[in-house]
Amino acid sequence: MPETAAELRARFRTGVSEPTSGLAPGFRQANLLVVPADWAYDVLLFIHRNPEACPVLDVTDTGSRHTPLAEGADLRTDLPRYRVWRDGRLVDEPTDVADVWREDSVSFLTGCSFTFDSALTQAGLPWRYPGRNVAMYKTNRDARPAGRMHGPLVVSMRPVPAELVGTAGRITALMPASHGAPVQIGSPRALGIRDLARPDFGDPAEAEPGDVPVFWACGVTLQAALVATRPPFAITHAPGHMFLTDVREPNVTVPG
Amino acid sequence: MPETAAELRARFRTGVSEPTSGLAPGFRQANLLVVPADWAYDVLLFIHRNPEACPVLDVTDTGSRHTPLAEGADLRTDLPRYRVWRDGRLVDEPTDVADVWREDSVSFLTGCSFTFDSALTQAGLPWRYPGRNVAMYKTNRDARPAGRMHGPLVVSMRPVPAELVGTAGRITALMPASHGAPVQIGSPRALGIRDLARPDFGDPAEAEPGDVPVFWACGVTLQAALVATRPPFAITHAPGHMFLTDVREPNVTVPG
Repeated sequence: MPETAAELRARFRTGVSEPTSGLAPGFRQANLLVVPADWAYDVLLFIHRNPEACPVLDVTDTGSRHTPLAEGADLRTDLPRYRVWRDGRLVDEPTDVADVWREDSVSFLTGCSFTFDSALTQAGLPWRYPGRNVAMYKTNRDARPAGRMHGPLVVSMRPVPAELVGTAGRITALMPASHGAPVQIGSPRALGIRDLARPDFGDPAEAEPGDVPVFWACGVTLQAALVATRPPFAITHAPGHMFLTDVREPNVTVPG
Repeated sequence: MPETAAELRARFRTGVSEPTSGLAPGFRQANLLVVPADWAYDVLLFIHRNPEACPVLDVTDTGSRHTPLAEGADLRTDLPRYRVWRDGRLVDEPTDVADVWREDSVSFLTGCSFTFDSALTQAGLPWRYPGRNVAMYKTNRDARPAGRMHGPLVVSMRPVPAELVGTAGRITALMPASHGAPVQIGSPRALGIRDLARPDFGDPAEAEPGDVPVFWACGVTLQAALVATRPPFAITHAPGHMFLTDVREPNVTVPG
């Protein structure tokens, strides 16, 4: 019996930490970005202008650590692992951030491709990264800038058997809150990715002969923008260690 | 031969003014809201939290009067009619706003139901407001508030022959950038609307026997929020007098 999102959040609150891919199937998973209120407009405009990479699920009121996406959750403690950033540099990867949380914080929760993994599995796609983190790459495409925020588009990659690429595209196109349809199919080079074996974030996937690399826009685009634009302070989830919401993703099925 | 959006904008620039329903079929139409930069975050968060009423098409950089949605357009002159607001009160309805435009302005362009009228007409729905403005009503539902912004949900209403209500719902559900599926079908009372013959904005529609009133979320929700929250200065389109973009709405067809 898989655990619910609420049960897993309660475990993460005690300091347990693991990547969330494959956990709580059917529940929406979310990227977290926390910035001081002074940066909130630039971030909100940036995610508006990059809806594939950053489909917005919720933006908290200033100072709040709660979200209607998960009753009783505390954004400072309920993710399995965080990253703390100062001036665009990663300074810590703790399992809670209660001690560094600022009262003028605004939190952004955006959709994650882990949400569609269970739909893909149900449609017969093999899972090429069991027990590991998905492979993520910076691309040669710029995200659309907004105010002080700019940076490269980051993508996640899943190897998909050639005969199932169409199915994967059709299913994910129906899930725009989880990045939607692929941004590229089959050509890492078209995205400026030289070596699939060396992802910029996460772990390399285990492709089988006949697999095609399929790329989806990724919420880590926001973390790449932090590095590029250096706000004085920020908190994010650690890549692959997402916030599990109580929102159930509707079942998506497509013909053959 | 219908005029293009660009041709119509050029005409409006000379001072010509008329409601835009039925004009430039196939081109996306947009609501306009312009506020001082100091209010931009609250507005952006409000439209985020109310995506049915305010599906975002573009947010300009501060001070810009241009948008990638319409090359060469000037947001100060290219709408057929504007409204100018001070402290939440309507003070003028000019055909251009170049003289009152502020350098710290941020402009929000959000989707409009006029965009789907041509798709509905193609699907065989009769048009119950030829040459007039669509009927719009304040409802008893609150929009989700954000910062200083709050107010009632506003809806537009089209009378639809009973046998075509399903078709109208299925078509518009596929057009989320133009408000998406209806928010209510058949019961004005459920929205707190007492008298369909007396809309709060626009003109009453001409229903035929057997028609069902169908309600969609409406971008005028933003204007109702201006009245409720009284920013010191704002500019909007006049209801029904939309900004015509160069973006073509994809053709949407659904089974019978």
